[in-house]
Amino acid sequence: MYSFFPLFYMAWADAVLLPSEIAAIEGYLRKQVWLTPEETEFLSGFLDPKHPPTPQELKSWKKAINESELEVRDSLAEIGMKLSNLKGSDTPVEVRTALLEMEDMLGIASSEATYHLRANKPKTIIEELASRPSFDPAIMNALLDGAEHDIIQKVKTILCDPAFRYIDPDSLTTYREQVLTWCRLLAEQGFGAMAYPEAYGGEDDMRKYFTIMETLSYHDLSTVIKFGVQFGLWGMSVYFLGTKKHHDKYLKDIGTLQLPGCFAMTETGHGSNVKGVQTTATYQHSNRTFIIHTPTELDTKEYIGNAALHGQMATVFAKLIIDDTDYGVNAFVVPLRTPKGEMHTGVTITDCGRKMGLNGVDNGKIAFDQVEIPYDNMLDKYASVDESGNFQSPITSDNRRFFTMLGTLVGGRIGIPRAGLSAAKSGLTIAIKYGDQRQQFGPENGQEVPILNYRTHQRRLMPLLANAYALHFALQHVTNRFLKRTEDEMQEIEAMAAGLKAWATWNTTHTLQECREACGGKGYLSENRLDRLKNDTDVFTTFEGDNTVLMQLVAKGRLSEFKKQFSDINFFGMVNYVTQHAKTSIVEMNPITIRNTDEAHLLDPEFHLAAFRYHENEILSSAAKRFKKHLDAGMDSFDAFNQTQYHMVQVGHAYVERLILEQFLEAVERTEDPKCKEALRKLCQLFALTQLEKNKGWYLEQDYLAGSKTKAIRKLINQLCWEVRQDAVALVDAFKIPKECLGAEIVG
Amino acid sequence: MYSFFPLFYMAWADAVLLPSEIAAIEGYLRKQVWLTPEETEFLSGFLDPKHPPTPQELKSWKKAINESELEVRDSLAEIGMKLSNLKGSDTPVEVRTALLEMEDMLGIASSEATYHLRANKPKTIIEELASRPSFDPAIMNALLDGAEHDIIQKVKTILCDPAFRYIDPDSLTTYREQVLTWCRLLAEQGFGAMAYPEAYGGEDDMRKYFTIMETLSYHDLSTVIKFGVQFGLWGMSVYFLGTKKHHDKYLKDIGTLQLPGCFAMTETGHGSNVKGVQTTATYQHSNRTFIIHTPTELDTKEYIGNAALHGQMATVFAKLIIDDTDYGVNAFVVPLRTPKGEMHTGVTITDCGRKMGLNGVDNGKIAFDQVEIPYDNMLDKYASVDESGNFQSPITSDNRRFFTMLGTLVGGRIGIPRAGLSAAKSGLTIAIKYGDQRQQFGPENGQEVPILNYRTHQRRLMPLLANAYALHFALQHVTNRFLKRTEDEMQEIEAMAAGLKAWATWNTTHTLQECREACGGKGYLSENRLDRLKNDTDVFTTFEGDNTVLMQLVAKGRLSEFKKQFSDINFFGMVNYVTQHAKTSIVEMNPITIRNTDEAHLLDPEFHLAAFRYHENEILSSAAKRFKKHLDAGMDSFDAFNQTQYHMVQVGHAYVERLILEQFLEAVERTEDPKCKEALRKLCQLFALTQLEKNKGWYLEQDYLAGSKTKAIRKLINQLCWEVRQDAVALVDAFKIPKECLGAEIVG
Repeated sequence: MYSFFPLFYMAWADAVLLPSEIAAIEGYLRKQVWLTPEETEFLSGFLDPKHPPTPQELKSWKKAINESELEVRDSLAEIGMKLSNLKGSDTPVEVRTALLEMEDMLGIASSEATYHLRANKPKTIIEELASRPSFDPAIMNALLDGAEHDIIQKVKTILCDPAFRYIDPDSLTTYREQVLTWCRLLAEQGFGAMAYPEAYGGEDDMRKYFTIMETLSYHDLSTVIKFGVQFGLWGMSVYFLGTKKHHDKYLKDIGTLQLPGCFAMTETGHGSNVKGVQTTATYQHSNRTFIIHTPTELDTKEYIGNAALHGQMATVFAKLIIDDTDYGVNAFVVPLRTPKGEMHTGVTITDCGRKMGLNGVDNGKIAFDQVEIPYDNMLDKYASVDESGNFQSPITSDNRRFFTMLGTLVGGRIGIPRAGLSAAKSGLTIAIKYGDQRQQFGPENGQEVPILNYRTHQRRLMPLLANAYALHFALQHVTNRFLKRTEDEMQEIEAMAAGLKAWATWNTTHTLQECREACGGKGYLSENRLDRLKNDTDVFTTFEGDNTVLMQLVAKGRLSEFKKQFSDINFFGMVNYVTQHAKTSIVEMNPITIRNTDEAHLLDPEFHLAAFRYHENEILSSAAKRFKKHLDAGMDSFDAFNQTQYHMVQVGHAYVERLILEQFLEAVERTEDPKCKEALRKLCQLFALTQLEKNKGWYLEQDYLAGSKTKAIRKLINQLCWEVRQDAVALVDAFKIPKECLGAEIVG
Repeated sequence: MYSFFPLFYMAWADAVLLPSEIAAIEGYLRKQVWLTPEETEFLSGFLDPKHPPTPQELKSWKKAINESELEVRDSLAEIGMKLSNLKGSDTPVEVRTALLEMEDMLGIASSEATYHLRANKPKTIIEELASRPSFDPAIMNALLDGAEHDIIQKVKTILCDPAFRYIDPDSLTTYREQVLTWCRLLAEQGFGAMAYPEAYGGEDDMRKYFTIMETLSYHDLSTVIKFGVQFGLWGMSVYFLGTKKHHDKYLKDIGTLQLPGCFAMTETGHGSNVKGVQTTATYQHSNRTFIIHTPTELDTKEYIGNAALHGQMATVFAKLIIDDTDYGVNAFVVPLRTPKGEMHTGVTITDCGRKMGLNGVDNGKIAFDQVEIPYDNMLDKYASVDESGNFQSPITSDNRRFFTMLGTLVGGRIGIPRAGLSAAKSGLTIAIKYGDQRQQFGPENGQEVPILNYRTHQRRLMPLLANAYALHFALQHVTNRFLKRTEDEMQEIEAMAAGLKAWATWNTTHTLQECREACGGKGYLSENRLDRLKNDTDVFTTFEGDNTVLMQLVAKGRLSEFKKQFSDINFFGMVNYVTQHAKTSIVEMNPITIRNTDEAHLLDPEFHLAAFRYHENEILSSAAKRFKKHLDAGMDSFDAFNQTQYHMVQVGHAYVERLILEQFLEAVERTEDPKCKEALRKLCQLFALTQLEKNKGWYLEQDYLAGSKTKAIRKLINQLCWEVRQDAVALVDAFKIPKECLGAEIVG
């Protein structure tokens, strides 16, 4: 009778067998002629739902079964027979037959059941998986840092100084003062003035300035933003929009933080549509002054960093009015408060108060009531008022002049995504290291396994790790292009910066959200810093240009770039070009390629690039065609753009993704260390395939990819995630973020 | 010559004409034989990039053009001729011809250009768009509230009392005390005890309890969670897991908040895998006590609400050990501290400190060092120790017993998504009302327009508004099912609650993120409360079950439900069924339906339901097949599940989405007011089509939808967003969230 115990055990333990299955076994037992009615009754007794065995009986069966020394592949019948033999009786042939028949009857349920009985199972695949780095993180780190390695190390060393230890952010007052102190300490190191000419205490090194911002972003994000407001926005507006007289007067003190200042562009009523700001600067020829004035509450300067407490001056953007004629938005230096903090007459500043994040930055609202400033305070690089009181500018159109002024400040759109990427790298370091340590669930009778071994966890984090590497190279690229720019390239670089800023900062928000969730409850505790990383960077998708607006800007740029490239006098000649171009791709789109699911093909960068470029061109072409169709039908161009707006945003995404892929591929190619090269290649493949999967609806709609191919891509992504998981800890180690900066107890 | 001024204006103003286009015009002018060399020179002078006109000249041209009284459809040539006539000379025929030819040459650029010149254009479509509610929000509100209207009103009235005014959350200490006070005030109203029997001060009304939680969630979320910990988790664990002796002793004091308590289940080392908790409760027969003990630091109870400051007792989940035998996880009431706050011997509590949100809740860690509790403190509804010291339980298996105990607490998985939905409704109310007021950009020479008129803004918010309505009805449904449950339905209801909890809380996170971004900088300021809404609800995707784990639970349930439904003794008989079932659908999938882009068809609920059900069945079938294939190949079931894990999560999503759609459709059907019915129908269509679009990659892979059809769906979603936008303010007004609760200055 012992032979049936495994069966009974399975019937009662943890619902492995369903009532219907139990009933079938009972029916089968009753049909066995070799059993006496008493035996049948006795056996069926163990299956009666009205009279379950006691917990103690269940435990004793389990004990007996475990003592029978199960083998890996033992079936339920074999276990029964072993048990019976162990108890001293050979299994009779009828019982053996009955057991085998029942096993057959139960099908999978039987083999599934035996898993539950085995005490010493071989390790499962998932238990075996672990971190097995395929490369040296130090070499990878050197490769990521490149020529900037020394300055990065210097910044990291300073951030590890006890003076930079994180403080409790509870009190707004204390936190803001701490952030000011941190900025002063950084200025003392010469970091603030880095991009200014040597004559003003700098090294004329914009590249280093970007690298400093990026590295500071491993630490407190409020400090980075305050630093950027002071030395980037305030300082560089004086540097780029002003002339020598302004440089001489202000730049040195700005670089040392002797003269804290603000960048007062955004108004309550005008953020994205910044050329619509309503603050006025009225020229008075009688005493050669300007009167800065805020007409209504909606025209108050808002969200201005450094304004609530520390700023003594501001670059104020205002419409220049001369003799009742509006000459568009120009920039002026306006004193706000004395070094002792006394407000100047006519200036009213209110505190923006607590924000979702960046609470170490003292944002404020500034209103001007007829504030008179001297003639010299106009930043006159692009426009001025001459001695007769006439407006002078080398740029005829007000709008074009304003956008030229803004263009010199495009650096902010490069600095922000680089800062955001650092925050994403911090989040990934925390979540991946935690996922590698944290164990939860495991096979029956086995050990619990690291959560990073689970496919869903890999699927969450590995593509985001690939994105971080991809963006690293893409943002390096746009920085290089910006630093070496010529006038002609400016429009292209602006589009590139706008698009990357939007894509990268959305990626930061998304990455940190996944990292928070991937760390569960631990991710919610402030002691692990994911909350601050998330909250501090959340506004990155808004400031320096709302992402949705920026993506439309990119799309507009793409449309006119085509127009320019082909010098076609008919605006929509380019539509024909794009269509033509797309048709060429279609020729390449033969049925075999569309259906090709060979791994070698799916991993081929040629395939990735072709697909990304096809996406970019085709989506641009269809957006342009649709836009033209609406215009042809007599629609206002504003309406026509709105009709295609959703589409235009996709144009921006497709453009940015192609750009990122190209840069990632180039980075892989120029990597010399073979192991790093291989690890990067895998990440790049994961990046490319993840984007293709994200856009698979579109590719399928276009018949560019067949269903069989997108399914094969999904499978390959799973495989790549599995492989990258083994490198994941090394890949975040290569960021070399000091643990003092990470500030997360779970990965202390 | 005046006739050419419009052309010159366009050449210099805002880069409407490209250099190549200007060069072409110049070339054309030079070919005009009727112009004298001097005239040509004069005219070309205005096009010379080396000698641009002054800003003043540009402004004077513009002024002249504006004085020529343009008509809507005037072309560039016509404007030129008008201008020339205005200046007193008839346009010579050669000039007329030249202008017309140039206009032709410029193509679209010309007609685009004229837009810029018109001062009084007709209103664009986008300017005309506005809020035009198609129904009465009060009727819709009554419909949403249903039979619970009175209790909802009562709770809202209390929340509007000055005693519930929001406080500055800077200080953790003050905030936590305030939240305790708010909970006491709510208990005084009888809200806390609502679900308990009348004998214990309640009304035995679980439905009302849910409704109270949901309504409180329009206010401070910390209060809701503290309220839920006290009256839901702590109180209901005593109520459902304990017996009369416990009810008599504790329940009344719990309901009045005389006896604050905790629910101590999660441990640092075991969150999702909660049946693995390691805290022990060792039975001592000598004095009939239990010794509660925390073996290692990893086994500390963590994240326990009410623990850091206020809890006097806790329901502690621990492994019951009798004579060295482990009887699985059971529940015990353990005293923590005296009413005066003195800790009991052996109990160590540390504060979890600041969190991303919910900082009004005092979460703590609890460790027990050999804490002795009396025999009566075991909550003995499902298991007990008899007088001889033997374990007794009607449920044989330890695991099954534990999950039965958990099942009684499934209410939490209904309460949380309902609370999250309220937060999402608050966010939508703020973002939609702001989007309706906030103006930015506009047509050339036109007014700025509300940002909610933009397609991208509608695309962001309208589908989320539809989700909120959809979830409202689905969560009502699962509440009803839960309240009227029978034993047999329990597994199904648990799966439903788990799936809806996951889907709804992810939706909350996503909705609030979009709302934050949609409000730009204003959304980042704490004064508009989106930060707190986001941060407080972020952990909803983690607690009461990590969403990814819950979705897998749903998938497992779906697999075994099929198994049960068909009483097939072979586990994977159901695979054949599902495949069969899918095949039936394929028969319906005739080529005409696949390609049917008729609006009536695309909006037809029959089409939506069929597509959702096909998705659900087919994805379940393929997950099951894949799972079986791995098992057949000899893979451990744990590995096999991991291989298909990503797929299993999709099974969960597909199931939940079908469930939500069915409930939304039923809600539309039972709506009597024809205007509300129509508005809801539109929202339901938007919900259905948005899900189809989200999953279009999958549908296209399956050849269930053709590319032409998914494109038509996209277009229709745009259209529905446009229509719903006009109802949007009324749709959020129908939530009737008091402005005191909203607490957002931008929609004050």
